Amino acid sequence: MSKFWNKKTQELLPYVAGEQPKDGVKVIKLNTNENPYAPSPKCEEILKNFDISELRLYPNTDSQIVRDAVGRKYSDYISAKNVFVGNGSDEVLALCWQAFFEEFTKTDLKVLTPNISYSFYPVYSQLYDVALERVQLNSDFTINIDDYCGRPNAGIAIANPNAPTSIAISLDDIEKILKANPDKVVIIDEAYAAFKDPFETAITLVPKYDNLVVVQTMSKSYGLAGLRVGYAVANEELIDGLMRVRDSFNSYPVDRIAQKLAAAAIDDDENYEKNRVALIKTREWSTKKLREIGFTVLESSANFIFAKPNFIEASKLYEILKAKGILVRYFSKKDINEYLRITIGTDEEMEALIKAIEEEK
Amino acid sequence: MSKFWNKKTQELLPYVAGEQPKDGVKVIKLNTNENPYAPSPKCEEILKNFDISELRLYPNTDSQIVRDAVGRKYSDYISAKNVFVGNGSDEVLALCWQAFFEEFTKTDLKVLTPNISYSFYPVYSQLYDVALERVQLNSDFTINIDDYCGRPNAGIAIANPNAPTSIAISLDDIEKILKANPDKVVIIDEAYAAFKDPFETAITLVPKYDNLVVVQTMSKSYGLAGLRVGYAVANEELIDGLMRVRDSFNSYPVDRIAQKLAAAAIDDDENYEKNRVALIKTREWSTKKLREIGFTVLESSANFIFAKPNFIEASKLYEILKAKGILVRYFSKKDINEYLRITIGTDEEMEALIKAIEEEK
Repeated sequence: MSKFWNKKTQELLPYVAGEQPKDGVKVIKLNTNENPYAPSPKCEEILKNFDISELRLYPNTDSQIVRDAVGRKYSDYISAKNVFVGNGSDEVLALCWQAFFEEFTKTDLKVLTPNISYSFYPVYSQLYDVALERVQLNSDFTINIDDYCGRPNAGIAIANPNAPTSIAISLDDIEKILKANPDKVVIIDEAYAAFKDPFETAITLVPKYDNLVVVQTMSKSYGLAGLRVGYAVANEELIDGLMRVRDSFNSYPVDRIAQKLAAAAIDDDENYEKNRVALIKTREWSTKKLREIGFTVLESSANFIFAKPNFIEASKLYEILKAKGILVRYFSKKDINEYLRITIGTDEEMEALIKAIEEEK
Repeated sequence: MSKFWNKKTQELLPYVAGEQPKDGVKVIKLNTNENPYAPSPKCEEILKNFDISELRLYPNTDSQIVRDAVGRKYSDYISAKNVFVGNGSDEVLALCWQAFFEEFTKTDLKVLTPNISYSFYPVYSQLYDVALERVQLNSDFTINIDDYCGRPNAGIAIANPNAPTSIAISLDDIEKILKANPDKVVIIDEAYAAFKDPFETAITLVPKYDNLVVVQTMSKSYGLAGLRVGYAVANEELIDGLMRVRDSFNSYPVDRIAQKLAAAAIDDDENYEKNRVALIKTREWSTKKLREIGFTVLESSANFIFAKPNFIEASKLYEILKAKGILVRYFSKKDINEYLRITIGTDEEMEALIKAIEEEK
């Protein structure tokens, strides 16, 4: 605490990111939903040939080459002008909060979001004076779609698949929510959507719904958590709103190198697809194994699983695994404190995890 | 305008960045205060040897290696724990506004800043509900230090050297302001301080004043505008405040590549010093030449000059130069609309500028 902090800063309860081991420390890292596979080899080529004298000039404010690449990838539904690029999807989500959700001093309505979801949502809400109503999930951790239809609100934010539950809702359900809230912005945070099987994305709904913002990140599906690039896809009016807020805060959020690597990675469908398929296969294998050992494992559409050990307390197992050099994520929060969130690693990493758990049974 | 934007977004007047020519278009670019010289060759080495598989992991949230480098550079005065690193100094400044300046709903006091200064300050103030009092400069564009001493305020922000005037205040004057406002945060924005001759920085005052925040950028002095790295130097309490706000918004603002390049560039004193000295020499030559032609040129401590052509309207000269492929910056704003802000380029670029102007006389 400091007399120099303003009142809001004194009251903030910041987001707590997962542990990051120091560079060089050997651990099996299954705690922050990173991709176990390297990004597109095209990124390496670009770095090798990058002319550093280019760095003396400011980057393009809009990350136009990244917008173009996303526009190409989803060209059946959208174009570059429907894309807003930011410094990771965390920044993009924060700007959505700032641009679209009304401050509580100006509305009696609240933004709806599941009570168990990405823990940054309540943090943004606090920072930007947005009132949040955290809607209870069903007892099986699924979202009750009717809770988001017909209830007055200041907007809606849903992670799909949800985190840390790993469970997805269908595009049909998303359409129900969009139709029931035509005057409110609905954010669908697709950080993990690449790992749905079969693949689907709400980007396909953008042409039909002017109240939809789909947010994606390159951190998980492209193996580029270290690069900090995320984007929103929406109609042009909403994209313009995001640009207005960005240009009132930081006009150049994505650097020249990151723009080039991101665009190249998005264009490399082959590497993306290969890693996606491999990860889904490992997830299915890991789910089966853990269930055999005695875990309840929720049906995952993400690159992690949410699993409850039925033979030991989750917090204990977390500590045991940590002592063995395997990091998973444990949340002490009520309702989810019997579960572990386990990122899907390589086959070898998951085999090591299973072995370590079996040793404790 | 859109019904989906919240009230604040509808009212925002965003910052307008200088024109950026498309990649490949040949212009002499003297409009956005970029460094004409390439960054440290150490950056090239790092890119060539960068292991892209590292990018699959999140970066260090604090950019610790950059903090360490800044701590080393100014080790007579501070250490790494006095350093906060962000996605360009624009982001760092925005976070300072959010962390330290009280919202107008919670105080009757205003933040003091010169009426002619970096045009992002009023934009941040609008975004974060901070009331700003824009204090009139003296008629010669200098800052009247007494205006910032003894006047109740919610904080102070001064660019030093100021922009677009290019004029610096002394460390003695900064100390007067710090002493007169012991309970308020004083931000000294040193975006251009590297070009003061002889060099001085308010970082040397950080050990003595707990209310001082010095903000620097790598965009100008290190030739790294395209990399987006800036930092604040202050006592630990203030640094903690910035971290709290960052962790309520975007925990990983600086990517893995940018952290490595920034740290290497800061460690390369030789390249930094060489480019700094060259630029100051070119600035002095350009100032002399322009005065000979018939300009009023303010005494610059920056990598740009603020110059009034006495034989033609500034707006006209701006257009003429643009037609000749030379971009400078013109502000239509009252009080400064008779001046042009001209970034110092290479000797060749400045000779071309002088020649183009002489052709019009």
